[in-house]
Amino acid sequence: MAGTYDGAIQDLIDSFAKLPGIGPKGAQRIAFHLLGVDRQSAQDLADAIITVKEKVRFCEICGNVCETSPCPICQDPRRDRSVICLVEEPKDVMSIERTGEYRGLYHVLGGAIDPMSNVGPGDLRIPELLQRLKSGEVKEIILALDPNIEGEATTTYLARLLDPLEITVTRLASGLPVGSDLEYADEITLGRAISGRRAV
Amino acid sequence: MAGTYDGAIQDLIDSFAKLPGIGPKGAQRIAFHLLGVDRQSAQDLADAIITVKEKVRFCEICGNVCETSPCPICQDPRRDRSVICLVEEPKDVMSIERTGEYRGLYHVLGGAIDPMSNVGPGDLRIPELLQRLKSGEVKEIILALDPNIEGEATTTYLARLLDPLEITVTRLASGLPVGSDLEYADEITLGRAISGRRAV
Repeated sequence: MAGTYDGAIQDLIDSFAKLPGIGPKGAQRIAFHLLGVDRQSAQDLADAIITVKEKVRFCEICGNVCETSPCPICQDPRRDRSVICLVEEPKDVMSIERTGEYRGLYHVLGGAIDPMSNVGPGDLRIPELLQRLKSGEVKEIILALDPNIEGEATTTYLARLLDPLEITVTRLASGLPVGSDLEYADEITLGRAISGRRAV
Repeated sequence: MAGTYDGAIQDLIDSFAKLPGIGPKGAQRIAFHLLGVDRQSAQDLADAIITVKEKVRFCEICGNVCETSPCPICQDPRRDRSVICLVEEPKDVMSIERTGEYRGLYHVLGGAIDPMSNVGPGDLRIPELLQRLKSGEVKEIILALDPNIEGEATTTYLARLLDPLEITVTRLASGLPVGSDLEYADEITLGRAISGRRAV
């Protein structure tokens, strides 16, 4: 009994502690919260977990998460089919959708090249991308990978791979985050902001 | 589609965002983590939530969470039945058990007096405590409430309530946390450490 709880509570704490961003103390807090809520709320959470595993799949075209394949974006006739925005993860699709600035299609790579974690180009959805480009409908690919080492490596790799094709390859602008202070920008970001300066 | 996900994923994000200590970004991260794990792991988490609601109850004597009532601590013949440690929440029982310094019984109040949240003495398990004291077996009560305003108010209330009974009422020592720096102690804690100083 010393140090751990009775069976079911400790099982629940352990289950939550496995989730990303939740430590042992947070897991304990959540477990006691769930002990206190009514039966239906706990059931709803359990159902939501099961439902997502049952219903959610990956779009056969773009690789985004969806309940219907092809996904609503790939099926939407109003989207601009001449542009594909390449992202690492399904959640990046949502981040770009939220801006309301983009009306083209997406392609989810499923990660970025990262030799330290044994992720090479063969582990990403690159063949599926090349397949989509064969129709000749796509005129521009926007490389929207994370601005970190893995994202940069993947951007460089893909830029070279796509160079022989007659497609414009662009990437997201690097620079100062809107609302931030010049004083607190790191030198690499500030350097990118200077080299990428635009006419007002 | 703009800003929110397809049905099941958004439902899961919303369910997790309701839990304490998890914000919208954290909930999204957990939802995508669960999308990526194998079916069994997701099922295990859902089962753990349901099981805890089915199996866990409150001990009829001390109010601690347990799967058998009375709880293992109340049933344990090796525990010292002359001392009761009074705590606010079941998780406080575990904190004290982990120290290995205490071999008596517990009584969980279920909270602390907090007029701002409409919690008065009538909302706490005080009648159950007085009932336990009737047998005359208990010689000491340790008030182990949180050292904040609500805990102090409850400690004062209970100390007065228990004063007429022939029971020693003690409270946890206030002072400097072990491993901390004198320099960073707040003045109230340091003041308590001075007034509670002990012979070496």
